[in-house]
Amino acid sequence: MPSPWGYRCTNGRCVKHLNTGVTGLVTLNQCKLTCGPFGVLWPRPQTASIGTEVVQFLPRNVALVSKVPEQVETLIKEAFDLFKDNLEKYHPYYVAGVGAPWSVPWEPSSATHTLQVVIKVRGLESYLTLQTDESYQLQLVTVGQVTTATISAQNFFGARHGLETILQLVDYHEICDTLMVVTSASIYDSPVFKYRGLLLDTSRNFFSIASIKRTIDAMSANKLNTFHWHLTDSHSFPLYLKSLPNMAYYGAYSSRQIYHPKEVKEVVQYGRVRGIRVLPEFDAPAHVGNGWQWTEQQGLGKLALCVNREPWQSYCVEPPCGQLNLANPNIYLVLGQIYQEIAKLFTPLDLFHYGGDEVNLNCWNTTTEMTSWMKFNNRNLSADDYYRQWSVFQEKSRQLLTSANNDVEVPGIVWTSHLTEKGRVDQYLNNTQYIIQIWSTGEDPLIAELLNKNYQVIFSNYDAWYLDCGVGAWVGAGHNWCSPYKGWQKVYDNNPHDIALNLTGSAHKDLILGGEAALWSEQVDEASLDAKVWPRGAALAERLWSNPLTDWSEAEHRFIHQRQRLLQRGVLPERIQPEWCHQNEGLCYI
Amino acid sequence: MPSPWGYRCTNGRCVKHLNTGVTGLVTLNQCKLTCGPFGVLWPRPQTASIGTEVVQFLPRNVALVSKVPEQVETLIKEAFDLFKDNLEKYHPYYVAGVGAPWSVPWEPSSATHTLQVVIKVRGLESYLTLQTDESYQLQLVTVGQVTTATISAQNFFGARHGLETILQLVDYHEICDTLMVVTSASIYDSPVFKYRGLLLDTSRNFFSIASIKRTIDAMSANKLNTFHWHLTDSHSFPLYLKSLPNMAYYGAYSSRQIYHPKEVKEVVQYGRVRGIRVLPEFDAPAHVGNGWQWTEQQGLGKLALCVNREPWQSYCVEPPCGQLNLANPNIYLVLGQIYQEIAKLFTPLDLFHYGGDEVNLNCWNTTTEMTSWMKFNNRNLSADDYYRQWSVFQEKSRQLLTSANNDVEVPGIVWTSHLTEKGRVDQYLNNTQYIIQIWSTGEDPLIAELLNKNYQVIFSNYDAWYLDCGVGAWVGAGHNWCSPYKGWQKVYDNNPHDIALNLTGSAHKDLILGGEAALWSEQVDEASLDAKVWPRGAALAERLWSNPLTDWSEAEHRFIHQRQRLLQRGVLPERIQPEWCHQNEGLCYI
Repeated sequence: MPSPWGYRCTNGRCVKHLNTGVTGLVTLNQCKLTCGPFGVLWPRPQTASIGTEVVQFLPRNVALVSKVPEQVETLIKEAFDLFKDNLEKYHPYYVAGVGAPWSVPWEPSSATHTLQVVIKVRGLESYLTLQTDESYQLQLVTVGQVTTATISAQNFFGARHGLETILQLVDYHEICDTLMVVTSASIYDSPVFKYRGLLLDTSRNFFSIASIKRTIDAMSANKLNTFHWHLTDSHSFPLYLKSLPNMAYYGAYSSRQIYHPKEVKEVVQYGRVRGIRVLPEFDAPAHVGNGWQWTEQQGLGKLALCVNREPWQSYCVEPPCGQLNLANPNIYLVLGQIYQEIAKLFTPLDLFHYGGDEVNLNCWNTTTEMTSWMKFNNRNLSADDYYRQWSVFQEKSRQLLTSANNDVEVPGIVWTSHLTEKGRVDQYLNNTQYIIQIWSTGEDPLIAELLNKNYQVIFSNYDAWYLDCGVGAWVGAGHNWCSPYKGWQKVYDNNPHDIALNLTGSAHKDLILGGEAALWSEQVDEASLDAKVWPRGAALAERLWSNPLTDWSEAEHRFIHQRQRLLQRGVLPERIQPEWCHQNEGLCYI
Repeated sequence: MPSPWGYRCTNGRCVKHLNTGVTGLVTLNQCKLTCGPFGVLWPRPQTASIGTEVVQFLPRNVALVSKVPEQVETLIKEAFDLFKDNLEKYHPYYVAGVGAPWSVPWEPSSATHTLQVVIKVRGLESYLTLQTDESYQLQLVTVGQVTTATISAQNFFGARHGLETILQLVDYHEICDTLMVVTSASIYDSPVFKYRGLLLDTSRNFFSIASIKRTIDAMSANKLNTFHWHLTDSHSFPLYLKSLPNMAYYGAYSSRQIYHPKEVKEVVQYGRVRGIRVLPEFDAPAHVGNGWQWTEQQGLGKLALCVNREPWQSYCVEPPCGQLNLANPNIYLVLGQIYQEIAKLFTPLDLFHYGGDEVNLNCWNTTTEMTSWMKFNNRNLSADDYYRQWSVFQEKSRQLLTSANNDVEVPGIVWTSHLTEKGRVDQYLNNTQYIIQIWSTGEDPLIAELLNKNYQVIFSNYDAWYLDCGVGAWVGAGHNWCSPYKGWQKVYDNNPHDIALNLTGSAHKDLILGGEAALWSEQVDEASLDAKVWPRGAALAERLWSNPLTDWSEAEHRFIHQRQRLLQRGVLPERIQPEWCHQNEGLCYI
């Protein structure tokens, strides 16, 4: 029995009506595809003109016309295969690996209508850099039994984004059990920010490769472009290194919770096809610990200090503690090997994250190895002496990484830390070599100092973009440190240009590379990963891709729809509203 | 390669050691089974004595000796089949519907050791009531190649709890790829509270039958005993009624989001085998709306008022509005039919929830049907007049339900509401007929009044037991109304007896039937259901089953283990701490 309800687009929103005696009503999905200036596109493109008609088709009648250089042909084909899979996923009874049980359409033309995708690309780029032009143009035209969608882009990455946009001009037709696509559209699109990231911490808790891939796929559906992999920390060392197998042997939570080189390479390639850079972070000199317990018995001496030392409150910000032993030169031997392997796994490297946050001076200053070495080298034991030594460590790390990367220097990212504090940053970090990732609040005056000193920055201010906030504490009672929870509205409204303007009087569009939401994993593992990241990650994505002048309230209807799309795409996102709000646009207001 | 780490129980906690040269180390799982007075039992039994040894076995060598009346034989067998399935689930590579790939044990005795379960039951009870004795005794003894676990209980429900407890004396042996069970134990156990519930709201968002069953199964692993099904509300009407098919036709979110009678009956039976009462709530006279739009065209007149009326703020607490039309006697016709069907689906009914919360007088008082009817019946339009009329409605509802239930009267539960406010409750609700479910805070003086007037109560005070709190708002920005998030510590420490003692000077153990956590579903659907409920639902369960004098901190190690067990059991619970804390008991302290 067909639904008693139908929809009509009125003043940019889909209004529900009883079907009886009312003409021109369509299904909710059909109404949403063509209602409002941006339909249900997410993130919002720069400009869009979308027709008001749709035509039905089946996913088997989709064809690719590829006008691209031979060198990117394979990437394009892989992306188009994903596109076809994603069309199948719109079916409510889609089963992964099996497909969808499309019935025979009752209207013959639906069975034969073709969606032809033409992709035009000139450039040869096959991996993302901060210079990659991700823009694209998309035209949809329908003539007779063929809808042609033409994507023109500078390179593969722009073209891939175009395919995602076509997917958003398509939806499932509830009554006819077919897909439908808008018959005409004209879109120009380009991201405002070059760097649009999501951090996943795989040390506090482990995440399977399957869950990482699922996350990357959902990122690609939102045109995010950087999966920042916080590989290791003091809690565990899940990365298997061929030259240093003891790191994972001693440091992984179990033999089932290890990333093997083949798997890491797979993730990097999985990301590339989806327009996503997989950026490794190897955090040092703090945030190390478990995994480093084997070095003494192997004759290298103690490379990590304060590992699991108690009481933890004296030596680190959370249990367990650990910090590299700068007094032992063998750390550079081991660090060099780690970088060698990372450079081979995350190839080609275009950015690297050194971590570099939350060094605890009391750890070093209460460890004889360090204090006697400092004295032997004619240093005092003041904070500034330690910072200087830390910066020496940082410089050596940079050289080791460059050497590991076949002497190709890549920009390094570091967290804001003691080294970037007021008046200190330019002593220790060169603004041509380092990008600073800001994790303090959006009101931190340090942001102004960094921008005024011409540092390129990435925003991850915790008061908006830390996705782990707002649950119970994990040491003691009460709530976790960065509570309360950051609702999607807060995530959406966090505009880096506005923050800069507010603090410095300039939007600093040249220096702000973009932003990143962070999922630190003290209190999440893959069981609830999806709900922590999605759909809030989509709110981040529109802020970074489109950076609209408007706030969350303009985006709400499209956002709720994008949440549903992510569910179809295979993740388990949090629900934002009752389904009634989705079916009655604009009525869940305050 | 075996892990370099091993464990030893020291002062009631499992301490991690490097394996080299240390004797007597065991795996983490083995250590936890036998360390501390309660091992990893959850909820904590009344008394337990657990041996320090384990013996390995394979789940295929498990046998049942059933000494029970014929009438409960089938239930016992079904519960034992579940027990065997749950043993399989301990394997890290268990696949639902397939089982686990056990390897051939390297130690021959592990391949043949038998776990024999003897179940002794006298009583014939086959469904839960508030009088059911859920206690049980459990003895484990090992002689030679056989471990015998003897459960003695008054009835099936106690015996079933005993099987859950045996499961918690078993765990997976990482090194040997077998199960292991403690060789000896002696446990007496009985719940402190009779009513231990979880509410799921399936109206704001829809939850599949599969997700409901998954929730019930996880409840059974925690010895909770009541799944309170908030079936309908103003947002949607997902229950298919044979005599009133229009309710779901007009009121369900889609034809795929409907509970069919066969499915509901399946859920009731699914619960019974797991020791869980499935308690229906049909909320009225407020919290109705969508689904009632067909009555006028069928000649019954308007049965629901203010349905989706705007601005919603004037007529209800959240969009969309709706309230029954007490002026139209046909509501009793329809309500009677609804109750008839509910009584047949949730059979045998031992409790019924009438809802009865959040009536908005302005809705009635701005509706001509109601106001003219009130005047015609010589009533004023004062609040008290409306309350009196509401109580008439409630009394008629009670009579209709009793009649639908073959004239068998069952206790009715109602929410605290205007009818239960200061000085009012005994005018409107008889304390021999109604149980009051408290959803205000744990400091509400109303609680004292209800107890002093001898009402039986169930605690669901929102400041501890509302699981939906602590996310972004869904109308407007900011956070949702009952923020912040209730961490597991808060859930655990909410002791109804202490609340009563604090407010009245008496613990009122006779009147406090128990408690219930509520998952209102404005901002959750089945995608993130598990993480909202678990493991916090387990914290609730120990409070209600054991009601320990101690607080969360004593329970922390067992709680973290129970979270892992729920994961193995098939739900996706939130993670509470880094896995490091699980592997290093007691070191994530403050």
